[in-house]
Amino acid sequence: MEFYDKKNILITGGLGFLGSNLAVSLVSRGAKVSVFDAMLPLYGGSLFNIKDINDKVDVIIGDLRDEAVLGKAVKDKEIIFHIAAQTSHIDSMTDPLLDVDINCRGNIIFLEACRRLNPSVKIIYAGTRGQYGRVKYVPVDEEHPLNPTDVYGVNKTAGEKYHFLYANSYGLKVCSLRINNSYGPRHQMKHGKYGILNWFIRLAMEGGTIKVFGEGTQLRDFNYVDDVTSAFIAAGASEKSEGRIYNLGSGAPVRFIDLVEKIIKTVGSGRMEKVPWPKDRKDIETGDYVASFERIKNELGWEPEVTLDQGLSKTVEYYRRYRDKYW
Amino acid sequence: MEFYDKKNILITGGLGFLGSNLAVSLVSRGAKVSVFDAMLPLYGGSLFNIKDINDKVDVIIGDLRDEAVLGKAVKDKEIIFHIAAQTSHIDSMTDPLLDVDINCRGNIIFLEACRRLNPSVKIIYAGTRGQYGRVKYVPVDEEHPLNPTDVYGVNKTAGEKYHFLYANSYGLKVCSLRINNSYGPRHQMKHGKYGILNWFIRLAMEGGTIKVFGEGTQLRDFNYVDDVTSAFIAAGASEKSEGRIYNLGSGAPVRFIDLVEKIIKTVGSGRMEKVPWPKDRKDIETGDYVASFERIKNELGWEPEVTLDQGLSKTVEYYRRYRDKYW
Repeated sequence: MEFYDKKNILITGGLGFLGSNLAVSLVSRGAKVSVFDAMLPLYGGSLFNIKDINDKVDVIIGDLRDEAVLGKAVKDKEIIFHIAAQTSHIDSMTDPLLDVDINCRGNIIFLEACRRLNPSVKIIYAGTRGQYGRVKYVPVDEEHPLNPTDVYGVNKTAGEKYHFLYANSYGLKVCSLRINNSYGPRHQMKHGKYGILNWFIRLAMEGGTIKVFGEGTQLRDFNYVDDVTSAFIAAGASEKSEGRIYNLGSGAPVRFIDLVEKIIKTVGSGRMEKVPWPKDRKDIETGDYVASFERIKNELGWEPEVTLDQGLSKTVEYYRRYRDKYW
Repeated sequence: MEFYDKKNILITGGLGFLGSNLAVSLVSRGAKVSVFDAMLPLYGGSLFNIKDINDKVDVIIGDLRDEAVLGKAVKDKEIIFHIAAQTSHIDSMTDPLLDVDINCRGNIIFLEACRRLNPSVKIIYAGTRGQYGRVKYVPVDEEHPLNPTDVYGVNKTAGEKYHFLYANSYGLKVCSLRINNSYGPRHQMKHGKYGILNWFIRLAMEGGTIKVFGEGTQLRDFNYVDDVTSAFIAAGASEKSEGRIYNLGSGAPVRFIDLVEKIIKTVGSGRMEKVPWPKDRKDIETGDYVASFERIKNELGWEPEVTLDQGLSKTVEYYRRYRDKYW
């Protein structure tokens, strides 16, 4: 795909899990990439994530909520992959004002900067399956009602809607990808507040106990990170994506308990324990989640390519090699 | 309705248009009413609005965003009518961060205070037809998708969703009324940023020109304020309203241009001029709006009782009498 050769790209949250994997992929396509990251403690930002492309990217340490730094970063970019966010469901309930500050106020500051300084830019927004909340039917398509069960889901929805109304009022070109649960290399491994699959891999690698709430029969739909970045890359390169919302999905949903067994088998250590649902988790539990990704398949030709078994092997391999950088 | 006799009630935004009319009605039903209002400049808060019940209500001048004052106000209340908000569509686009601050951050501060200090309280949230945005079908029922065209609409939606997720997670009892365009006595008359019908009445009373954008054929659905307050009163008094969202509506939508003619006729002065759509208005214009209020009619027995002609007469009469207090 020559589309990205010499393109000026900004990735917000570019030192985190998804952002850094996307940066690596875009650099390999010849893009001129700037990564923008606040490096907030406990979030996923890490300079190690971009060690292989260090000399080929422009690193801006800055916060969405800092208009001056952000303004400079958004200027002259052709495409912005806007991934920076507060991403913990649990933290959004224990510190809802922080979530509002980053995911509402931060998004408005970002969009105001774009409309003032770069009104013709194309933005790919990182939406989330958390926007759907409690599932009414599966597979969940993009018309499924949005009834988030946590403040994170409400504010990511507000963020998405800000994007589309700025598109309508000021001409920004906008696409939202509602991302599934995802996993893979370059994810933080210090806590399990988000990125549950990666966290389970750490627990297994340490020979620890993976707790499964209830019977663990709820379905989840995981995408390996390379499949997520390829969706961002497809959306950024196609005019068809303008004004569109797309789900990602795996096409191969897995029961939570089977996922844990696969992880333990792939890692070769760890054990599983069933425990009752804690109240704070049960309240924000959304039921079986299976995504329909028909729309992005039909319109952009995107499909997931990495199976869960393949993805798990690659992820375990990565953390075996770089454990000291992430633990 | 004896339900409200001696009930402890809080009305946020209680010195504004809707809040003060509701306070008057609740006091007449024997309720012990506290009104909470920030008295922000250019907003609708006015002590004159409660002149007839001055000695019967507790007035708290405070801002949603001030946790300490708000905390004291929400304690020991049985029902809270939560009406305080930034309410201008236009201002939400020119100062979106203010809208986020009041309508997102303010709502979280409010809900956190309720769950900590009064978790069994019942809250009636003032939603808005602005949550629907561009209309896909009429009449608009509560299942119509929410695609707001301005920051106000997005944030009022976020505010509503925060309420329902706090209900789910912490047991608050919540109902949202998605209010139509409304009009009547006790509305601010200093500017036309919101409350367009009242603003047109002022223009007509001053013998001025009422501008109609485009052909003025778009349908609008107006409720006289007494019908809006009676819906709040019905929702507060019924257990059926818990966890429910209800539209209000008039059952008698009117073309914009016919509305203007009615106003000029009722007032007996003023003239109409057709002008092209200004861009900032066109961008947030939502098309014909006709509300379905079948749900609240069926579940709570609410129906509008005041016709547009009756409501216009009452409103004009009020402002003829108290013009010096509102101009």
